[in-house]
Amino acid sequence: MDIDQATLRRLSLNTMTTKNWTLPEAVDGSVRAGLPAVGLWRDRVAEVGLDAAAKRVRDAGLRVSSLCRGGFLTAADAAGQRAALEDNRAAIIEAATLGTDALIMVVGGLPEGDRDLAGARQRVADRLAELVPFAKEHGVRMVLEPLHPMYVADRAVLSTLGQALDIASGHPADAVAVVVDTFHVFWDPQLPEQIARAGREGRVASYQVCDFNLPIASDALLSRGMMGDGVIDFRAITSMIAATGYDGDIEVEIFNAAIWAMNGDDVLATMARRYAELVHPYLDPAAADPAPADR
Amino acid sequence: MDIDQATLRRLSLNTMTTKNWTLPEAVDGSVRAGLPAVGLWRDRVAEVGLDAAAKRVRDAGLRVSSLCRGGFLTAADAAGQRAALEDNRAAIIEAATLGTDALIMVVGGLPEGDRDLAGARQRVADRLAELVPFAKEHGVRMVLEPLHPMYVADRAVLSTLGQALDIASGHPADAVAVVVDTFHVFWDPQLPEQIARAGREGRVASYQVCDFNLPIASDALLSRGMMGDGVIDFRAITSMIAATGYDGDIEVEIFNAAIWAMNGDDVLATMARRYAELVHPYLDPAAADPAPADR
Repeated sequence: MDIDQATLRRLSLNTMTTKNWTLPEAVDGSVRAGLPAVGLWRDRVAEVGLDAAAKRVRDAGLRVSSLCRGGFLTAADAAGQRAALEDNRAAIIEAATLGTDALIMVVGGLPEGDRDLAGARQRVADRLAELVPFAKEHGVRMVLEPLHPMYVADRAVLSTLGQALDIASGHPADAVAVVVDTFHVFWDPQLPEQIARAGREGRVASYQVCDFNLPIASDALLSRGMMGDGVIDFRAITSMIAATGYDGDIEVEIFNAAIWAMNGDDVLATMARRYAELVHPYLDPAAADPAPADR
Repeated sequence: MDIDQATLRRLSLNTMTTKNWTLPEAVDGSVRAGLPAVGLWRDRVAEVGLDAAAKRVRDAGLRVSSLCRGGFLTAADAAGQRAALEDNRAAIIEAATLGTDALIMVVGGLPEGDRDLAGARQRVADRLAELVPFAKEHGVRMVLEPLHPMYVADRAVLSTLGQALDIASGHPADAVAVVVDTFHVFWDPQLPEQIARAGREGRVASYQVCDFNLPIASDALLSRGMMGDGVIDFRAITSMIAATGYDGDIEVEIFNAAIWAMNGDDVLATMARRYAELVHPYLDPAAADPAPADR
């Protein structure tokens, strides 16, 4: 398939997809593949240095679609809470310096030995509220990422888009928003109505696509797959996103041992083809299939 | 810990927990352990023969707390749908013959190659509606089991208690009810309100307890753990169940390779101790901690 540049004008490589590439390699690879944007992880940025990373991406003519990640807000002790606030303030400054207004937030799981989900969820809301003024001051949105419920205990007590929007609802949309990551939310019976709600509230800050592979990988974190390799209906979810009017970048973020072992240029070529076939056709709201949201 | 019989008067062994026991072995083991009830799987019943199984359990003085399982209603083709209806009618008759009114329903995943979750969910609702008259006629409730979202594609497109209650809502509570299985629903931010709703609607037909172990087992189906070994707050969820007035049996159903490899009597002894410590204290609605449902 020959893919023209217009088709790829919103496609962004999240650096996790090519985990073995350094940030300069990911930037150069994205340029070679004709991609206009990258989603950066903080560890890749730190290896190069913040200002050098920002310059490198800018000089290559790429947008930064998001910075991954802030969050981990569930500490129950004062020292842990202080450390979380400090780390998130640093992440907000990094996002602003890199030229993105989207800081992806993975909110964290239960503290060791703790089983009180309701308590941990309340602490997320509390810490987030404390960070809102700092985020607004720096022009960065904290973008809440609901994670698949299989990660609720060890990674993110935020499990649904509805729950994320409930937490966001007390705050301005330019300070707290949400990301829709197909892997994490495709199963949710309330997805059509919650994506529509996120759109109405102006809180769709990012759309991330990857597939849900079966069987679940022996390391459950690595079950994310290339679009088309798993069970997700990208037409349905992309149509819902399109209907909100979201016109930002679309990141591909894949944790997958087999993909990490591949040549990076091959990964980007596959990613561009699958995106062109499975996602791009449904991005035009006028062409969107209304059926998935209606039934 | 010495456990008196009164403490165990609602504890039921689901035969999956002692997978390597035949039905007669499970019955005898339950009697030895002082349990008053068993939850039966259809394959264990079939090995003995339906009438012989019913007699064996009755003669031992045990209740049958539920029959596992009906369901698998998502077929898209006419032949598959016909087969599903036939199999569920057979299961309804088996439940009635065994003396339980609770047929647990695992509704099924996506048909091979199909990614249309909304369509599969609609077919579940359609097949269920077709089965309602037959279930009522035989005095058996179809007990919908929402499964953890990690199984949505390959096992059950029913993912939350709220979704189960939405499907049930068009039908009488003596024909369509729900089971609350801690493993499958503990993560749900809407759990307190949906359990309360199930209670108000008279649809809590079964309470099943087991833990959610981390890390997730390499075969994700086998991550169910003995209460206390994982991350679930049994006090919180049991208190919600108690507040509904549910006074039926409480089944322990564990899929876990390490537990299956243990001596069955040891498994039942551990199960009784953990139940006495982690579940039983919160079964009295008067003593129930109101906090989890309120906050």
